[in-house]
Amino acid sequence: MGKVLPNTAVKAEDVAMEGSLHVKVRWLITKEMGANNFAMRLFEVEPEGYSPLHKHAWEHEVFILAGNGNLFDGEKETLFKAGDAVFVPPNEMHQFVNGGKTLLRFLCLIPHLKE
Amino acid sequence: MGKVLPNTAVKAEDVAMEGSLHVKVRWLITKEMGANNFAMRLFEVEPEGYSPLHKHAWEHEVFILAGNGNLFDGEKETLFKAGDAVFVPPNEMHQFVNGGKTLLRFLCLIPHLKE
Repeated sequence: MGKVLPNTAVKAEDVAMEGSLHVKVRWLITKEMGANNFAMRLFEVEPEGYSPLHKHAWEHEVFILAGNGNLFDGEKETLFKAGDAVFVPPNEMHQFVNGGKTLLRFLCLIPHLKE
Repeated sequence: MGKVLPNTAVKAEDVAMEGSLHVKVRWLITKEMGANNFAMRLFEVEPEGYSPLHKHAWEHEVFILAGNGNLFDGEKETLFKAGDAVFVPPNEMHQFVNGGKTLLRFLCLIPHLKE
């Protein structure tokens, strides 16, 4: 049987990555749950907060649930708002910045790492 | 550079699968866009509508954006509401039913088919 869980049933953990500020993450759907291909995480970024500006070999598939902000690639900002989908290809610099005055909440899905 | 697009910028197509009623889908993030591992779709189900009761070899990772309804496995219903995450493992019977009076909107992500 499928599993249904309120997102708030999963603990919001501090993201303590260097270069990030005021970011928490809830791992909603994981490999441990039997999801063999990709993971669903919900990020919460307070006003003035941001994820690290970085890149890596895997893509992000993002959906903005609440708030607004911008995607920064090191040079250019692209605005986003609730209801937008965001795709970040592999190996591209990216940073999610809360550009608003309310909590920014977004889903960010990633393939499991192939190591 | 990453791509940002309002979900409404993608056309909502009728889902004409046998056993479904009043369902539309927007393919937000696709292989054609460069997403090599999985796809993000947004489904919209009108009141009294439902997806087909079926199973297949791939999993679903779902997030309920608006409305409420239930996940039916052929025997048992599990209620869900906006803000819930839903995981349907591979090869399990499932049907998404709008059990409310408003539009049910949810994201449903799937791995690309390995054929």
